[in-house]
Amino acid sequence: MPPVPAPSRRTARVAPFLAMDVLSAARAKARQGADIMHMEIGQPSAPTPRRPLEAARAAMASGQIGYTEALGLPSLRERIARSYQDLYGVSVDAEQVIITTGSSGGFMLAFLAAFETGARIACACPGYPAYRNIFNALEMETVDIPVGAANGGWSMTAAAIAAVSRLRPLDGVLVMSPSNPTGVIARPDELAAIGALCREQGLWLISDEIYHGLHYGAPASTALATTPDAIVVNSFSKYYCMTGWRIGWLVVPQALVRPIERLAQSLFISTPFLSQVAAEAAFDAIDELEAVRAGYARNRDIVLNALADLGLETAPADGAFYAYVDVSRHAADSMEFCRRFLDEAGVAITPGLDFDPHRGAHFARFSFAGSQETCVEGMARLKTFLATASLRA
Amino acid sequence: MPPVPAPSRRTARVAPFLAMDVLSAARAKARQGADIMHMEIGQPSAPTPRRPLEAARAAMASGQIGYTEALGLPSLRERIARSYQDLYGVSVDAEQVIITTGSSGGFMLAFLAAFETGARIACACPGYPAYRNIFNALEMETVDIPVGAANGGWSMTAAAIAAVSRLRPLDGVLVMSPSNPTGVIARPDELAAIGALCREQGLWLISDEIYHGLHYGAPASTALATTPDAIVVNSFSKYYCMTGWRIGWLVVPQALVRPIERLAQSLFISTPFLSQVAAEAAFDAIDELEAVRAGYARNRDIVLNALADLGLETAPADGAFYAYVDVSRHAADSMEFCRRFLDEAGVAITPGLDFDPHRGAHFARFSFAGSQETCVEGMARLKTFLATASLRA
Repeated sequence: MPPVPAPSRRTARVAPFLAMDVLSAARAKARQGADIMHMEIGQPSAPTPRRPLEAARAAMASGQIGYTEALGLPSLRERIARSYQDLYGVSVDAEQVIITTGSSGGFMLAFLAAFETGARIACACPGYPAYRNIFNALEMETVDIPVGAANGGWSMTAAAIAAVSRLRPLDGVLVMSPSNPTGVIARPDELAAIGALCREQGLWLISDEIYHGLHYGAPASTALATTPDAIVVNSFSKYYCMTGWRIGWLVVPQALVRPIERLAQSLFISTPFLSQVAAEAAFDAIDELEAVRAGYARNRDIVLNALADLGLETAPADGAFYAYVDVSRHAADSMEFCRRFLDEAGVAITPGLDFDPHRGAHFARFSFAGSQETCVEGMARLKTFLATASLRA
Repeated sequence: MPPVPAPSRRTARVAPFLAMDVLSAARAKARQGADIMHMEIGQPSAPTPRRPLEAARAAMASGQIGYTEALGLPSLRERIARSYQDLYGVSVDAEQVIITTGSSGGFMLAFLAAFETGARIACACPGYPAYRNIFNALEMETVDIPVGAANGGWSMTAAAIAAVSRLRPLDGVLVMSPSNPTGVIARPDELAAIGALCREQGLWLISDEIYHGLHYGAPASTALATTPDAIVVNSFSKYYCMTGWRIGWLVVPQALVRPIERLAQSLFISTPFLSQVAAEAAFDAIDELEAVRAGYARNRDIVLNALADLGLETAPADGAFYAYVDVSRHAADSMEFCRRFLDEAGVAITPGLDFDPHRGAHFARFSFAGSQETCVEGMARLKTFLATASLRA
């Protein structure tokens, strides 16, 4: 008799998302009574704003919580389309807007609709780990473009992409600005140059704009401003403080709307109804959300100043809510550093290997999306930990 | 300059889910003021029960609606595991239970974790169209096992699967009982025989049990009763009346838990928080849900009696809430029949081509998950439509 069947080979190529593993470990410790400072995942500590909560509550009154159109509620698609005019002065048709189950659902739809099996997609490294894992799950290939202090800057450049594509052709480029884990915002002219390169070589440009709205100097620009054929991925999780609702959107060229509709009908049926209703009301919560952003700006000062005082170098945190920190002075392996920091000091942070399989062992990501108290206490514990733990000298 | 890149070739292989297209068309007509009888999609007209609504409302009070563990809230996983003992007398460990974004999310995780690109999976035809579409999107192959009055019965048999696998080996078998679109419940001995065949040939057995709880005679048995290595897919959408919450689960063998956790971390991050909280409370809503089921039983009598009076043949609707009806006496093409029935009589039903690309043009699916009024009025309009519309003689 043959053995019980085994997991597919692709699963061996999908790395754990260490931030989620740290979250699980930190929650397990918290259930045992430990007082954990959560600086590991990119999740606003601020609650969902009042207006979306009210909208969801009102929608619950009838108890009728059903499927919606596969592409999402028409009124939400229209509201999002309008926001592009308001925020960026860019015209987007509601038809081009596709509601997704978080940006996660958007990636799955966009990658399946745009790319063949075996496609090669250029991504900045360090970068969001789910890209690589989803590409591996779908048998597509991540082409790493190294960025960093040692690589001529923290933003992916058109020149670096062109150099890689000369060795072997690409099928797409995935940009993220502000970036996770670095917070770096791409210069508008560099984003335009990447768009021009994609046009020239017939590549899909996918722009992950999930951290838009979260900037501490000049705002990020949308890829749609210079590359109307770009596929934009966005979500209500970060700026809008709605992670657990799992609601996001795509803006896609007209040619992709119907193919993605067919995929969404079978892969998702529809996105969660209450989340769609709440999301539409989030556009009326800007005052509340700007107050949250002002809190991040204060947290950012606390964290960046404390790290600088401790002699730790970070990537420029222009946006998002992360500091990507070089911890190599204190540990040969940031996994071990993070494990001990959680066990001995009760602070959860994310090892850099999540974001960069090559040089990530030197880095760790601190999220300052939590409360001010978390940031103050987390940095105080870091100071004590570095002073007292026997780390490498 | 090369052209703007095109949608991937896989998108051409993903058929539209006609039921969702009918829903869109019916909603557009309703927005224009038409009085539409919705008999097209598999969605309970009953609202979400009181207890889950209360639980969600209570969880909203703090506004803290965040990510959960990728595999789901531990308490929900435990509650679901316990239900297998209560409902079937089968022991399931909470570790084996994985919370998913509807059964849709469960299929994506199960198929990616179990199968390689190019895998061949046997499915009953007619069957749930998303199977074929997801397999096509992932470059896997649906191997149709025809069932029906003309094919020795409406249930897939181990003998039929064995015959197909002799021609070319399979990688898995996907069973669904009660079935969509037919409502047919597989005999326990036949399900066990399919499990034994899978064991013998080293195939994955995936059992879609989304319509469990909805039966009008003997209940359906779980594949886990005879095949502990089966992958079970289930959801709160149907029996629990929670479609729009997008919440479901998998039960998987231990060897798949960690591979699926890694996939879920990157593909989904987590399932919607409020939906998980509501789902846990759904187990306390059985009285309300049994009353809903009694309503389906009444609807079923109304629909089956009316169809019989009109001389239309249906598959045995043992469970679920569908009648799969042979309309070939009245139309050469059920697409055209459904289009005209919606346009001229305002009743939305689903063409059989959704479920069976070969013989589906002869069939249409009527859902009786709506209200009693919808069923009565839908059948009255059908009678008038058949009597007055100039259909084929």
